[in-house]
Amino acid sequence: MTAFHPPLEDMGFVLERIAGLDRILDLPAYRHTDREIVGLVLSEAAKFASEVLAPLDRAGDLAGAVLAPEGVRTPPGFAEAYARFIEGGWNGLVFPGEWGGQGLPWLVGTAVAEMWNAANLAFYLAPLLTQAGIEALLVHGSPEQKRLYLPKLVSGEWTAAMCLTEPQAGSEVGALRTRAERDGEVYRIRGQKIFITFGDHDLASNIVHFVLARLPGAPAGTKGISLFLVPKFLPTDDGRPGPRNDVRCLKLEHKLGIHASPTCVMSYGEGEGAVGWLVGEENEGMRCMFTMMNNARIAVGIEGLGVAQRAFGKALAYARGRLQGVRDGRRVAIVEHPDVRRMLLTMRARIAAMRALCYVTAAAVDRAYQDPDVEAARAARGRVALLTPIVKAWCTDRACEIASLAIQVHGGMGFIEETGIAQHYRDVRITPIYEGTNGIQAIDLVNRKLAMENGRLPWALFEELRGELAEPKSVLREPLAHALGRLEEVTRRLQDADADTRQAAATPYLRLFGDVLGAFLLARGARAAENDARGAAWPGLARFFVHQLLPSALAEAEAALASPAELDPALLPAG
Amino acid sequence: MTAFHPPLEDMGFVLERIAGLDRILDLPAYRHTDREIVGLVLSEAAKFASEVLAPLDRAGDLAGAVLAPEGVRTPPGFAEAYARFIEGGWNGLVFPGEWGGQGLPWLVGTAVAEMWNAANLAFYLAPLLTQAGIEALLVHGSPEQKRLYLPKLVSGEWTAAMCLTEPQAGSEVGALRTRAERDGEVYRIRGQKIFITFGDHDLASNIVHFVLARLPGAPAGTKGISLFLVPKFLPTDDGRPGPRNDVRCLKLEHKLGIHASPTCVMSYGEGEGAVGWLVGEENEGMRCMFTMMNNARIAVGIEGLGVAQRAFGKALAYARGRLQGVRDGRRVAIVEHPDVRRMLLTMRARIAAMRALCYVTAAAVDRAYQDPDVEAARAARGRVALLTPIVKAWCTDRACEIASLAIQVHGGMGFIEETGIAQHYRDVRITPIYEGTNGIQAIDLVNRKLAMENGRLPWALFEELRGELAEPKSVLREPLAHALGRLEEVTRRLQDADADTRQAAATPYLRLFGDVLGAFLLARGARAAENDARGAAWPGLARFFVHQLLPSALAEAEAALASPAELDPALLPAG
Repeated sequence: MTAFHPPLEDMGFVLERIAGLDRILDLPAYRHTDREIVGLVLSEAAKFASEVLAPLDRAGDLAGAVLAPEGVRTPPGFAEAYARFIEGGWNGLVFPGEWGGQGLPWLVGTAVAEMWNAANLAFYLAPLLTQAGIEALLVHGSPEQKRLYLPKLVSGEWTAAMCLTEPQAGSEVGALRTRAERDGEVYRIRGQKIFITFGDHDLASNIVHFVLARLPGAPAGTKGISLFLVPKFLPTDDGRPGPRNDVRCLKLEHKLGIHASPTCVMSYGEGEGAVGWLVGEENEGMRCMFTMMNNARIAVGIEGLGVAQRAFGKALAYARGRLQGVRDGRRVAIVEHPDVRRMLLTMRARIAAMRALCYVTAAAVDRAYQDPDVEAARAARGRVALLTPIVKAWCTDRACEIASLAIQVHGGMGFIEETGIAQHYRDVRITPIYEGTNGIQAIDLVNRKLAMENGRLPWALFEELRGELAEPKSVLREPLAHALGRLEEVTRRLQDADADTRQAAATPYLRLFGDVLGAFLLARGARAAENDARGAAWPGLARFFVHQLLPSALAEAEAALASPAELDPALLPAG
Repeated sequence: MTAFHPPLEDMGFVLERIAGLDRILDLPAYRHTDREIVGLVLSEAAKFASEVLAPLDRAGDLAGAVLAPEGVRTPPGFAEAYARFIEGGWNGLVFPGEWGGQGLPWLVGTAVAEMWNAANLAFYLAPLLTQAGIEALLVHGSPEQKRLYLPKLVSGEWTAAMCLTEPQAGSEVGALRTRAERDGEVYRIRGQKIFITFGDHDLASNIVHFVLARLPGAPAGTKGISLFLVPKFLPTDDGRPGPRNDVRCLKLEHKLGIHASPTCVMSYGEGEGAVGWLVGEENEGMRCMFTMMNNARIAVGIEGLGVAQRAFGKALAYARGRLQGVRDGRRVAIVEHPDVRRMLLTMRARIAAMRALCYVTAAAVDRAYQDPDVEAARAARGRVALLTPIVKAWCTDRACEIASLAIQVHGGMGFIEETGIAQHYRDVRITPIYEGTNGIQAIDLVNRKLAMENGRLPWALFEELRGELAEPKSVLREPLAHALGRLEEVTRRLQDADADTRQAAATPYLRLFGDVLGAFLLARGARAAENDARGAAWPGLARFFVHQLLPSALAEAEAALASPAELDPALLPAG
């Protein structure tokens, strides 16, 4: 099994030359840190990822999480690794010092998260959901809720779980049936939730469930949903886990991948009703949920990036070590065969573009939160809103393809579980599904994001991209200009289109958007490489991407512009 | 779990209207049968597939094959199902009556195989490899070998295993080290083979291993390889299994999928040497192997087709049953959402094209074997040679994508193993790998098939396709003509190119070829639909394919025409 070595050079190049790390570190909120500290954080994280988390990855897959009478047990070694993780302060990396966090930029947190995901996707889901809970409380929590929960969640002593889905309410959250009733100072929650990641486990001393539920007489659909904080153990006033709440894991799902991550069917209120506290206002649960989900969606895109990088590293090592075939009279490693190199370069170029997109979006998150210039912060919020569905869906779809290519490079060994590459293929397949399927992301892009702020969001981005075309050094100017023109044309058409046309076009449009953006980001890297040896490969990667991968993506425009009538239900066989 | 219902109407339409079943049945070799008999065979096979094989599919995945002290045990129910399979005469469907077969066309066998693969991919691998062994003996076996082995293999009483791969010899078969030495009337075989599908099992009373090995002093590489027949039990003169041969399964691989199919590490000659008989001439093993492999490669393409159809059927049923979201004020099944329908129609249109390609190729196999017109048979052999790598690689790559779409349609349920859809995703992932990776197929296409017969093979096909464009009814004439022009242009360039350029272009070229051919076959169906209600969906499917799927495929031409220098090894990170 190939050891995991995070690509710190590639990451550093993207952080500094494409995502503008220095400008983020210049924001007043990050004056307490600097490039040197960031470098140390990254190299320490790389060490922890490769030495502690990565070795548990396959063992966790084999053992899986199990439901014991006393609750869910994570695989051997996970609890120890988690203890070291929170001891190292990794859990609160991006959260305010006020609550015990390190207050580092999201941009840095993103690079670190890439490594956690690469090393052990299943493990990192626990901290990831805690992060979502922290964000919900930071924005919508009462002072008392913040005081009681934030220090524990930021340190990682407690974890959080997001409890949205019910059997009849998946993509359609508004169909949920879990009920909440006022009972003096608290609420009583009754219902079942499914697909609850780390809904129960043995890593932490308490688990804070963020549960969407419906109050008596609440409006139908999404307008009648409220968010409740339902801890597994009711905290005492001094913040220790107190009495057990009426919350129980009924079952774990048997899944295609991420076996070490318990996916729970959770039951609330089988007895006296689970005690919960309202987060935010009554019937404002969807808004709170979107706070939780938005960065979680970006985080899932980063999961795709991380797993893709891991799979690529293994495939490359295999291709360099596996002798097969003869060229110029000598036995060669398969990396010397152009067809194998095509697979590896496809992975490499896409990963470079994915990383650039993830980091650029993270930098926008930092600006959105911390830029003292109100207008810049507003613009950054718009940018994040626009890019979030693209980061989530484009990176995860491409990650699945990359994991598949990684199997293919391994030939017959790719199908053998001992090799370890098949696990990444299984694990990563969840990423286009959870936190809103990629179809939902695409519809979010065409329905909400193209319409926000009078439709200005994509055009602000396109204007920036056009500006980059003006730079004299871009040898790829012509194909990039053509690509941008196509994207603009489709964008214009969809902004004027009816709902069915938009929905029919959603998925090819998102893919087109992602690939065009990826091409521009690679070109940006190619230009920056002139002054930075770490980027030496970027001009070639950009050329390869633009010449060999972008054309197919551009052709997606045809599908995005086709008549929705072509998606005729009559073409499906009778049921 | 959705029951499996083979799409007999779709299959019948393709058989009759696209692959020309009637003209195949007119061949003298098939005069003993007719369309009615074929219809009965198909409906009986559909029954057997859905009632006997499909219900064992998931159980087989869960139980898997296991290595017991007495040998490999297949999952519960498999031995009974196999007994019924051979009792029904299914094993010898396409083989000569002389050896106990049914003598039906390969075209019919292909449609039947589609159903076996859809119902239970792992199960059907046993008969499939037996079929490969039968073909090797029919062409290369001595009269005595035929007399002893063919009746048993054709009935299925015995099975065959193809024993090629060794740890250091995968795609590069010539690197194998297994040795054979003459010992009186027989040979003694010594060595190890890996990845031997159904190398040991409990379905049949004997297993005939077709082992590639090297004789003392044989030339290096592929020129020094011979094929040996190594039965698990040495047959007595009257054809019963006699003494145990020196052949043993050392280990089963733990695989991503097809768990019910034992993938064996086999040892030959740990003691006195395994007894083997030479098939064909000494050092002619590669030729014999290609006889075995050629139809096996087509068969793997049909595996892709079968699993894709199964996955599509499940996704469609799920999409029709799953209520989620509201349209026009009412709660709707997700099939009503255009984005979901895009996934389903993508699957449906591609499957239609895949089926058409598989059946058309099978009809060419029949002509190649049975056309009394020598010139027609020769042309058909060329057609089969050309289409084989496309059937294998294009159908299996697309099948993996279709299985992934089927998961996506299921949303969160797609990731849960109980749903059953994840198994197809895992199972089908082997098909781009075995019987020659899809990269090897693409290289076979550009290196061998474009060069055969002075480069005439593709041009004979293109001329036929051009002829179809002339038909006045083709509304898709213009985009099809454009697509064909692109394919012709790339073909011409590659036929003139050097080896590196060809290899660099191989994979995108094969994909381009497959999709253009698929588009033409759909258009052929669209025209035929005017006179056949079973094809009612084809005009719409052809339109959808040409407008929405073909453009991306055409863009693959850009990659196929790009400079091989763009696949620069320096772009890969230092190792």
